[in-house]
Amino acid sequence: MFKESLQKVVENVEGGVASLVMGFDGIAVDAYSKATNGPPLDMNTVGMEFSFILTQVRKAAEILEVGALQELTLKSEKLIMIMKVLTPEYFLALALGPEGNFGKGRYLLRIIAPKLQAEL
Amino acid sequence: MFKESLQKVVENVEGGVASLVMGFDGIAVDAYSKATNGPPLDMNTVGMEFSFILTQVRKAAEILEVGALQELTLKSEKLIMIMKVLTPEYFLALALGPEGNFGKGRYLLRIIAPKLQAEL
Repeated sequence: MFKESLQKVVENVEGGVASLVMGFDGIAVDAYSKATNGPPLDMNTVGMEFSFILTQVRKAAEILEVGALQELTLKSEKLIMIMKVLTPEYFLALALGPEGNFGKGRYLLRIIAPKLQAEL
Repeated sequence: MFKESLQKVVENVEGGVASLVMGFDGIAVDAYSKATNGPPLDMNTVGMEFSFILTQVRKAAEILEVGALQELTLKSEKLIMIMKVLTPEYFLALALGPEGNFGKGRYLLRIIAPKLQAEL
């Protein structure tokens, strides 16, 4: 149902590794991982860790009265993650390699989000 | 000591609101807030909330073995936050209004980071 959109994002961004739609409870709805030469990224585990982080950030946003969380991104030595809140229950995440195209990744998530939101 | 650099970033990015250098323990080293017509953003409180989040994200990055955290950004309805890890003890944060120039904010933090790192 979501696989086609998830695949499109990963395949169309430089450095694309994996993407998923997940509930804030850490249960994945659908995911896509690109075949790589190296060890594959366990996108489900990554998503689960960040579903917890996103929940913490949503609470912080509430305390600080800065309105609803829309997007969270992070960059570490080996990974770029872009997460976009789709509905109060679900989020979309994209993982890129450290040299991946951050701007294009964000743009592609923005493009597919309305389609996914309509199906959730 | 850091005020000049912090002010330069806030004043040179569209939508700039405030910036600070803070320890991961939630204690600010220095901060700068732009004078606004509306209620000022309490950058110290915002920083404290996010020092906790950053610590959680660093733990997650460790569990996931994706290397050290370098940058965390978020966008909510009323705020854009860009946080950059300076040293294992300190981070740099920039707050922008929701229509602020995200790309330029990130760029400016990258530019001033080495200077701040050298002084920490």
